[in-house]
Amino acid sequence: MLLSDEGKKVLLHDLAILIEANVEQIITANVKDLDRMDDADPKKDRLLLTESRIQALADSVRDVAQLEDPTGKELYRKTMENGLEVTKITVPVGVVGIIYESRPNVTIDVAALCIRSGNAVLLRGGTDAEFSNLVLVDIIHQAMEKNQVETNAVQLLPTDRKFVKEMLEATDYVDIIIPRGSQSLIDFVRANSKVPTIETGAGVCHTYIESSADLESAAEIVVNAKVQRPSVCNALDTILVDKSIAGAFLPKIKEGMEEFNVAVYADEESFEILESVHYKNLYKAHSEDFGKEYLGYGCSVKVVENMEEALEHISQFSSKHSEAIVSRDAEKCERFLNEVDAAAVYTNASTRFTDGGVFGLGAEIGISTQKLHARGPFALEKLTTEKWVVRGNGQIRN
Amino acid sequence: MLLSDEGKKVLLHDLAILIEANVEQIITANVKDLDRMDDADPKKDRLLLTESRIQALADSVRDVAQLEDPTGKELYRKTMENGLEVTKITVPVGVVGIIYESRPNVTIDVAALCIRSGNAVLLRGGTDAEFSNLVLVDIIHQAMEKNQVETNAVQLLPTDRKFVKEMLEATDYVDIIIPRGSQSLIDFVRANSKVPTIETGAGVCHTYIESSADLESAAEIVVNAKVQRPSVCNALDTILVDKSIAGAFLPKIKEGMEEFNVAVYADEESFEILESVHYKNLYKAHSEDFGKEYLGYGCSVKVVENMEEALEHISQFSSKHSEAIVSRDAEKCERFLNEVDAAAVYTNASTRFTDGGVFGLGAEIGISTQKLHARGPFALEKLTTEKWVVRGNGQIRN
Repeated sequence: MLLSDEGKKVLLHDLAILIEANVEQIITANVKDLDRMDDADPKKDRLLLTESRIQALADSVRDVAQLEDPTGKELYRKTMENGLEVTKITVPVGVVGIIYESRPNVTIDVAALCIRSGNAVLLRGGTDAEFSNLVLVDIIHQAMEKNQVETNAVQLLPTDRKFVKEMLEATDYVDIIIPRGSQSLIDFVRANSKVPTIETGAGVCHTYIESSADLESAAEIVVNAKVQRPSVCNALDTILVDKSIAGAFLPKIKEGMEEFNVAVYADEESFEILESVHYKNLYKAHSEDFGKEYLGYGCSVKVVENMEEALEHISQFSSKHSEAIVSRDAEKCERFLNEVDAAAVYTNASTRFTDGGVFGLGAEIGISTQKLHARGPFALEKLTTEKWVVRGNGQIRN
Repeated sequence: MLLSDEGKKVLLHDLAILIEANVEQIITANVKDLDRMDDADPKKDRLLLTESRIQALADSVRDVAQLEDPTGKELYRKTMENGLEVTKITVPVGVVGIIYESRPNVTIDVAALCIRSGNAVLLRGGTDAEFSNLVLVDIIHQAMEKNQVETNAVQLLPTDRKFVKEMLEATDYVDIIIPRGSQSLIDFVRANSKVPTIETGAGVCHTYIESSADLESAAEIVVNAKVQRPSVCNALDTILVDKSIAGAFLPKIKEGMEEFNVAVYADEESFEILESVHYKNLYKAHSEDFGKEYLGYGCSVKVVENMEEALEHISQFSSKHSEAIVSRDAEKCERFLNEVDAAAVYTNASTRFTDGGVFGLGAEIGISTQKLHARGPFALEKLTTEKWVVRGNGQIRN
């Protein structure tokens, strides 16, 4: 898409208005999808579009319009001795493929981000949400037509499985594929895609309580990281605690963790400590309880000899998503930030903050746990690539 | 590697000195490799290490030491309302795998770049260069030992083919793989690697002579882009010329092209024009002569109706490496820069300038023709990834 910054904003504002004007039509289509789904299916809530959720969609489109245009930014400039002007600028990636599941809001969110960044997008939504997605894409197309933009820049693929495979192999037509959904979807895309993909993988997140930590604060951080929203990837999975303070620290998490009936899988030493304070939902940890993403009210605990052992444990079991240390020793804090290899590393804070919106990037498509192109929150600016632009007046190379 | 900026520089200077001190030993090993190779083999020259080439290697290590440390750069900073300090910095990618062929100089060049950027590197050189590579890596290890750096941060893999396959599948241990060599090597890596790779693909490069062009300058640019070093990826492959000036322009390239006996594969109209001036090495173009990387003294020519046709041709046949327009119409120049999708786009200059050194980036590992992570010259700074570093004093998420 070769729309101007202003043109993209106008299109998105028109889209927000059209969403608001078509609430009834959207709900009618959504009901058709809902009717096909079993009432007991946990995906039903993710599929549901209510009036207020549709309003939130329109609002989020307006938010994306407010974000700074990520394209056309000058990243580098050099004038060569021969007068050649070398610059490097950001440009849209080109064609973005998204494979996602039930949530129809992804259709609008991702289309808005792609329009804002000047990319074409191939949407491959779930069969569950087919009627909802068809209406939403129709509304997007109305906004595009109103702004004289070719509607095939936003395409909804048929739900037939064969189109997923075709998309994953279309290296000449698709520049990047982002799977958004369950681990099995992500694994499938990773294993089968010939197009470069962004992995938004699991989060096995540790918080290490170092011996100098403020134990009250440490307990608050650990409990928050576990219970504030346990179903997400930046939630805590394993507590590591220095031996010298384990006896003083662990009883402090009892109340907060028990309030949510968190199942704690504890190594021998921590089990003894938590048992002595009658922690309710306590189990002896087995080796598979470490390096595990709980995605719910569960976590593991391990007592470590010292920082070396903590770093070693993290290096072995981390999925390189979000890792934290709680400590009042500035040197140890810096060492942790320096040596732990993860998308986000923290001192004295809950890992729950790893989020595009929180970090100030606007809406995110996911948290990348890979190292190339994007690491951490994958937001608008990462829907760009670079282009070297060289302006001359007859220069040749000697 | 957790060396300081200064520590890395010192290590590289020690390496340069050790290379100079071991010229004889290097040459002895290199002779063993050369002796195994047939005299007629064109790879023999690439394998050869002379005293002056070894000196050049030491010099290039010193050049890399002079480059700015690409790690630890702050890319983003935000202090949240709750006092949380969010920053994003550059860090080493981690473990870099390089698969390359005969040239033993790659061993030193790549090891130096990886040391400078704090990465560990797995070198998988060609069987041809085995003795040379063993000595060179031994010298690198001496420099590392002198600086108390673990030598396994630079490893030469055995030449057994099975190690290539293992490396391509080692997603838990290798963060990025860069193939450096022939197209067949690159294709093999692309097809088989589960580790993210950087494609340094072919260059099918066009230069479009627009009707307003200064024809003398255009001829000079085109000839330079073709003959200055035709074996490389940024050399010209196809000339597109506006119909209205084709008759005036094409005769101007005759002398320069004939000097190097360039074989010209011309479409019907350009064939007539070049035939009328008795161009010597002239052929009628077939469809396969367009979209072809010549890598030698050959090119194709096509007369186009106008800029639209030129853009369409480029969009269809470009490998998205380097593309140029020659024109005095500023608006058309900007349109070309804007609309052509390639790693490097030029106005009024030879495409031969696409090069890390020329662009001011220092030594390059190759020219990336893909869009993620790195596009264009792949140099030192792209051996980094990002890390979100978040400093708190007890913050939790509400």
